[in-house]
Amino acid sequence: MRRNVETFIGCDADYKEAAFVLFGAPFDSTTSYRPGARFGPSAMRHESFGLETYSPYQDKDLCDISVFDSGDIELCFGEPALALRKIEKRAERILQDGKFPFLFGGEHLVTLGAVRAVHKKYPDLCIIHFDAHADLRDDYLGARLSHACVMRRCHELLGDGKIHQFCIRSGDRAEFAFAKEHTCLHPFDFSGLKETAERIAKAGTPVYITVDLDCLDPSVFPGTGTPEAGGVTFLQLLAAIREVCKLNVVGADVNELAPSLDHSGVSTATACKVVREFLLALDKTERR
Amino acid sequence: MRRNVETFIGCDADYKEAAFVLFGAPFDSTTSYRPGARFGPSAMRHESFGLETYSPYQDKDLCDISVFDSGDIELCFGEPALALRKIEKRAERILQDGKFPFLFGGEHLVTLGAVRAVHKKYPDLCIIHFDAHADLRDDYLGARLSHACVMRRCHELLGDGKIHQFCIRSGDRAEFAFAKEHTCLHPFDFSGLKETAERIAKAGTPVYITVDLDCLDPSVFPGTGTPEAGGVTFLQLLAAIREVCKLNVVGADVNELAPSLDHSGVSTATACKVVREFLLALDKTERR
Amino acid sequence: MRRNVETFIGCDADYKEAAFVLFGAPFDSTTSYRPGARFGPSAMRHESFGLETYSPYQDKDLCDISVFDSGDIELCFGEPALALRKIEKRAERILQDGKFPFLFGGEHLVTLGAVRAVHKKYPDLCIIHFDAHADLRDDYLGARLSHACVMRRCHELLGDGKIHQFCIRSGDRAEFAFAKEHTCLHPFDFSGLKETAERIAKAGTPVYITVDLDCLDPSVFPGTGTPEAGGVTFLQLLAAIREVCKLNVVGADVNELAPSLDHSGVSTATACKVVREFLLALDKTERR
Amino acid sequence: MRRNVETFIGCDADYKEAAFVLFGAPFDSTTSYRPGARFGPSAMRHESFGLETYSPYQDKDLCDISVFDSGDIELCFGEPALALRKIEKRAERILQDGKFPFLFGGEHLVTLGAVRAVHKKYPDLCIIHFDAHADLRDDYLGARLSHACVMRRCHELLGDGKIHQFCIRSGDRAEFAFAKEHTCLHPFDFSGLKETAERIAKAGTPVYITVDLDCLDPSVFPGTGTPEAGGVTFLQLLAAIREVCKLNVVGADVNELAPSLDHSGVSTATACKVVREFLLALDKTERR
Amino acid sequence: MRRNVETFIGCDADYKEAAFVLFGAPFDSTTSYRPGARFGPSAMRHESFGLETYSPYQDKDLCDISVFDSGDIELCFGEPALALRKIEKRAERILQDGKFPFLFGGEHLVTLGAVRAVHKKYPDLCIIHFDAHADLRDDYLGARLSHACVMRRCHELLGDGKIHQFCIRSGDRAEFAFAKEHTCLHPFDFSGLKETAERIAKAGTPVYITVDLDCLDPSVFPGTGTPEAGGVTFLQLLAAIREVCKLNVVGADVNELAPSLDHSGVSTATACKVVREFLLALDKTERR
Amino acid sequence: MRRNVETFIGCDADYKEAAFVLFGAPFDSTTSYRPGARFGPSAMRHESFGLETYSPYQDKDLCDISVFDSGDIELCFGEPALALRKIEKRAERILQDGKFPFLFGGEHLVTLGAVRAVHKKYPDLCIIHFDAHADLRDDYLGARLSHACVMRRCHELLGDGKIHQFCIRSGDRAEFAFAKEHTCLHPFDFSGLKETAERIAKAGTPVYITVDLDCLDPSVFPGTGTPEAGGVTFLQLLAAIREVCKLNVVGADVNELAPSLDHSGVSTATACKVVREFLLALDKTERR
Repeated sequence: MRRNVETFIGCDADYKEAAFVLFGAPFDSTTSYRPGARFGPSAMRHESFGLETYSPYQDKDLCDISVFDSGDIELCFGEPALALRKIEKRAERILQDGKFPFLFGGEHLVTLGAVRAVHKKYPDLCIIHFDAHADLRDDYLGARLSHACVMRRCHELLGDGKIHQFCIRSGDRAEFAFAKEHTCLHPFDFSGLKETAERIAKAGTPVYITVDLDCLDPSVFPGTGTPEAGGVTFLQLLAAIREVCKLNVVGADVNELAPSLDHSGVSTATACKVVREFLLALDKTERR
Repeated sequence: MRRNVETFIGCDADYKEAAFVLFGAPFDSTTSYRPGARFGPSAMRHESFGLETYSPYQDKDLCDISVFDSGDIELCFGEPALALRKIEKRAERILQDGKFPFLFGGEHLVTLGAVRAVHKKYPDLCIIHFDAHADLRDDYLGARLSHACVMRRCHELLGDGKIHQFCIRSGDRAEFAFAKEHTCLHPFDFSGLKETAERIAKAGTPVYITVDLDCLDPSVFPGTGTPEAGGVTFLQLLAAIREVCKLNVVGADVNELAPSLDHSGVSTATACKVVREFLLALDKTERR
Repeated sequence: MRRNVETFIGCDADYKEAAFVLFGAPFDSTTSYRPGARFGPSAMRHESFGLETYSPYQDKDLCDISVFDSGDIELCFGEPALALRKIEKRAERILQDGKFPFLFGGEHLVTLGAVRAVHKKYPDLCIIHFDAHADLRDDYLGARLSHACVMRRCHELLGDGKIHQFCIRSGDRAEFAFAKEHTCLHPFDFSGLKETAERIAKAGTPVYITVDLDCLDPSVFPGTGTPEAGGVTFLQLLAAIREVCKLNVVGADVNELAPSLDHSGVSTATACKVVREFLLALDKTERR
Repeated sequence: MRRNVETFIGCDADYKEAAFVLFGAPFDSTTSYRPGARFGPSAMRHESFGLETYSPYQDKDLCDISVFDSGDIELCFGEPALALRKIEKRAERILQDGKFPFLFGGEHLVTLGAVRAVHKKYPDLCIIHFDAHADLRDDYLGARLSHACVMRRCHELLGDGKIHQFCIRSGDRAEFAFAKEHTCLHPFDFSGLKETAERIAKAGTPVYITVDLDCLDPSVFPGTGTPEAGGVTFLQLLAAIREVCKLNVVGADVNELAPSLDHSGVSTATACKVVREFLLALDKTERR
Repeated sequence: MRRNVETFIGCDADYKEAAFVLFGAPFDSTTSYRPGARFGPSAMRHESFGLETYSPYQDKDLCDISVFDSGDIELCFGEPALALRKIEKRAERILQDGKFPFLFGGEHLVTLGAVRAVHKKYPDLCIIHFDAHADLRDDYLGARLSHACVMRRCHELLGDGKIHQFCIRSGDRAEFAFAKEHTCLHPFDFSGLKETAERIAKAGTPVYITVDLDCLDPSVFPGTGTPEAGGVTFLQLLAAIREVCKLNVVGADVNELAPSLDHSGVSTATACKVVREFLLALDKTERR
Repeated sequence: MRRNVETFIGCDADYKEAAFVLFGAPFDSTTSYRPGARFGPSAMRHESFGLETYSPYQDKDLCDISVFDSGDIELCFGEPALALRKIEKRAERILQDGKFPFLFGGEHLVTLGAVRAVHKKYPDLCIIHFDAHADLRDDYLGARLSHACVMRRCHELLGDGKIHQFCIRSGDRAEFAFAKEHTCLHPFDFSGLKETAERIAKAGTPVYITVDLDCLDPSVFPGTGTPEAGGVTFLQLLAAIREVCKLNVVGADVNELAPSLDHSGVSTATACKVVREFLLALDKTERR
């Protein structure tokens, strides 16, 4: 008799043969407004069973690609530095084994753990960042390890001109000013994405993609800690993901689903579909 | 003193003079993911009192057309075959009396009951089907009477080329393959609807319209068992309904509202407005 | 030690130097369908702390303009006439002190209190009205002071051709007929807004702007008593507000948020952002 | 074919032969804290279908007694005086026809309408009042027709010593002082109920019973506008109802269910069961 | 790297050495009122991580006993007969391997599958049944395989005097009459439990325990399809479970948690604790 | 015109003359299961307006005692050490000014900040602790500053025999073992409270009272992160609070309300009433 296993739907490959490895970081201790993103990874796994594995958008099926779901890391609430080290370590192990790390957040801070690991392997890494928020504060009420600062911390690692931000529609004046100097911030939507992708493609730079699901309009995705009206549609996000997955992507994450903030379950269902489309799009890239 | 009567707003005609007859099928036993559609018909009736009877979209009023609301059929949970027979019988009676059967689901399987009755009267019937899901499985975990199979069962009745599907964005690979051979599946939205309608109009074929409300984007309609991101807008649905109501429509249904999944009540309010616009559009057809 | 103060975010000016004065009217006794708008003002204040004061849309910051939040008026439920007198009095006081009255409803009836005060000071006042509902009934089940009648009562004050209505998509036949004779009703969306604004600008007429947030599509704003599918988007509303704020605006309100109808909190967050953008847009006007 | 009828379960008698007549007053305009009681009557009717008609507590069945459900009165929000007149009129008609008026609130103010009618017929009427709140204010923020004043208004009709209050655990100091002089207030629970009932039985005084369901502990009945911890249990309430139904009861009501405040549906289900037990207990009285 | 495993907390034994085997039956197709019990088993597993494995009530720890969690059976909605066969088969396998089958429902009908298997092995089996409902109908709207009929079907297997029912407070008149003839029904609470247990202990009869969690008062356990006010407390249920676990128990189940009906999560947390206490109490029995 | 002030109801004294000072610690970063307690303090303040200031239990009124509400401290999420320092500082300031610090949590860890300050002033301090959880872990997944460790940290400050724990019904085996050696743990309910109070009274020891509201049964108080069935009733808690308030109490807190976990609002209303009764009971003590 088989022990109860719960993986993201269709992600049942053996670890050895898997090209992609899912791992969850159920952490939200630094969330500034409404917590709950800690429940994102398990909700995505759990509710993925309402989803088809087949995508009519890409005419591909999760069952045809090899993904291993390694479950959630046990993280210590209230200790962000410790949590980040554990995330980094898991990502490192996946990279060492020659596989693609795909992280389920959690709050956006968890990205920093994965980026540290990926950056060690790929020092010329750049980041493509879809988000409603700039996340470029130097500190938030004194904390430098906060979800409001995650891109600032990434910038310290990667340097100027390496972070390409899209859909940004919230931040304080200083963040937008910082972005002007140090990142490539595209406000509101995906304007400029194609050009950015073409330039990165030409350079062949390795890319980490981080998707804060609150880039989506709250009508589509209300289940998130800090919803910001005026976001992009689901189909726009899918198109953008397919666009950037053509690049040399070496790591990725999807974060900031706080499932209990949306009792209708639509946010979780939508997050699941984003993950399916993301994995399928990545696979296309990888096979080339 | 009058006994407490609760009909869909403005649907107060006497049975004898009514052109349209509403009937509800509060059934959801085969729902594969999240049940609750059994409460759809009563919720629509109940909440319709927040709705105006007048439509500024069509400059028409429910009070001016003659609709009779015959209430819900008492259905046995867990016995789909029995439930379908009861639905078929009610629809048959309505058709025999020369009236238009308008069914409130319930899960989508209930459509099969109505289609059986309508098909008996109109053997050359075709179906126009708005839905997020193809509903073309041969069985679902062994059950052939499942909401995931309803269009497959209809296809067995009507034959190839008789089912025109729109907005479909979910299904397994086999369903899409089946559709290629046997139905006219238009993925994602209403592309091709006008051409389809023109062809049917020319042929004069009698039409049954089945609207699974999950064709709508979940932002607009979260209150449904299996929400699928990437759907059509409310105004697109209204336009499509008005388009197909110009045809020789002989039966119709609206289904898959699961009201308790949307505490805001927006899904139910939206379903009510779809029904109002649908009835008003049908009436235009009928009067010609 | 400071007593606990809770103002709308960034609205911390001293009364004397403030250009704008916020005041709340937590009233919803005449709501015809689902009450709860009484909790709108305090919810907006409370949840505004999840909002940035800086707007990337206008490149302006609430911290740079001077707004005083005078809190909610204590209103007597079940006595609309009394409530309106109290609202009128507060607005009058603000106007006498040479400041701009900005009202948080409550149900839409509260607008009448503010309009009475503003109209006394500006007898040639016109109203720009964004709403899903015409609000032009003469009475609602016998009550003439009802949120369904508020624009009719305003019309009695201001006369023909002075009320410019946009986004209207609900009402009975008689209201639309009344509008044809007496107001300037633009159904469904903001079509005609630019022309209207140009005409008013030319005449230099003082303007009161009343925003019933249910003009927004329910996907964006489900937390309201009578949601009406088919509304405008958040970005369309922002653009319209910026357009009309170029005029000689002398009073304004935002109303019909019923926060408990939307557990996701998105409606309240959206209302807060509308208020931020509205205040910032007004300030531009005022400074000229 | 039968029009859709929705009555409280098992209350299907013809008006002529009915001993009891249900009528609903969907009104909550004067609710001081959280509105929503307007939806109480229809929710009770609607959800009563989850209830058995048979009571194992009393070994009696709703199907064996003759109850007619006359539906809800159409009431004007924001006009309490008008609403009360309509309620009074309906109660009067029922009394004239020799039947027992059983009112579903709505907020507690609606009791005043029924009491006025019953008092006209039975000038020596006394009231038995189960409630968490004393409801003895002379006015509430200026309104004398408020749910917080309803027993004060009843006192003006009936005079001293005629109102027997139980379970009271909330009120201001003045209300408790007033009670000491003018009513028989039993705080917290049903202490003293038996003695009260015996005294009334001896005198043979006609009794009106008003049950504000918030007398129940909020654990049992969270779905009410102003929940007050420390209330009685369901079984205590049933026992108390059976006790007082032995008296010469000539009218009754059950009020202050606000169904949307309790998404679990437990409050509505509990209210339905209270109504069933109340009607069955009344019937026993009547048959003697 | 380990695949994501999700078992009930502390139930991590190897199958071979396990004394108890958990299995879930996520089925609710015959639920007569509000569905959702299908999500019970996964919710219990998922939320069990908020629970300690140690019980201060029994001074025992789940970590010290050997339980294997075999996960949920994949069941076909709308086909109760098929579902029951699959449940029976799993229970049979567990019994054949000399282990104790512990079933998580699902609706109460699932008990029939387990009882069939257990009865085959223990022909003199008796049932101890904790429930708000008698579940003794012969059919429900025509269906004989319904959660409202499950004890009637069990009676057909086991015969008269073999079913001991406690806490029953809902049913139609016929069910209570049937109980008088054929089962041992103890209404309302656990009165008579001790005597029953003593008698069974003396006889040494093998016992199947089925706990419909709606025996609990809805204040304690609102998350169930048909809540019935007037139930027992959590501590009363624990005491009763410990009492009956002293007997020769050979199979057990816990059912009718519908987690989405209780957004507070209290019902699921309570169900988890009942399971922990149940397993710990059973273990005591087994070790003797 | 007055700036918008929002204090706990009836707590409007000037700071100088206030005997009690309320302060809130909106922090929940170390919550191990479900976060949300950060919103407790503002919810209590906000919803206190549904509460009477008068207590019929104690025949006293909040308006008659002098309480100042100093609002919430701005705390940094994800940095527990920093947060505790800020809480300690505020408590110190209040104590220096000769006033009574009354803290609204937040998660239970915040107690440590207040206890540090109070302990500095009263080195022989003892703690009376009402809670479902022992909170005696040495660390939680590596974190020593966690709500699961707060009493262990307090023990390090105060030493053996100084912490009197009541209602404890959850913890791991090691915590209960630790308690046996180092604290006075009374499991499940208030057994032993009277004796404890008498002993402390005799010794005249200064007392800090910390009330984790999850000591209440979840039926009464579902809105908390880790609900534990089997708790005490509201009236039992009131009686216990009145009992211990007769002692020499020098500081107090109420914590672990997570308002968004209970949409009915009952948990918040109950917390408000606990605070009212607590303040009134403390005042009695103080005046003697």
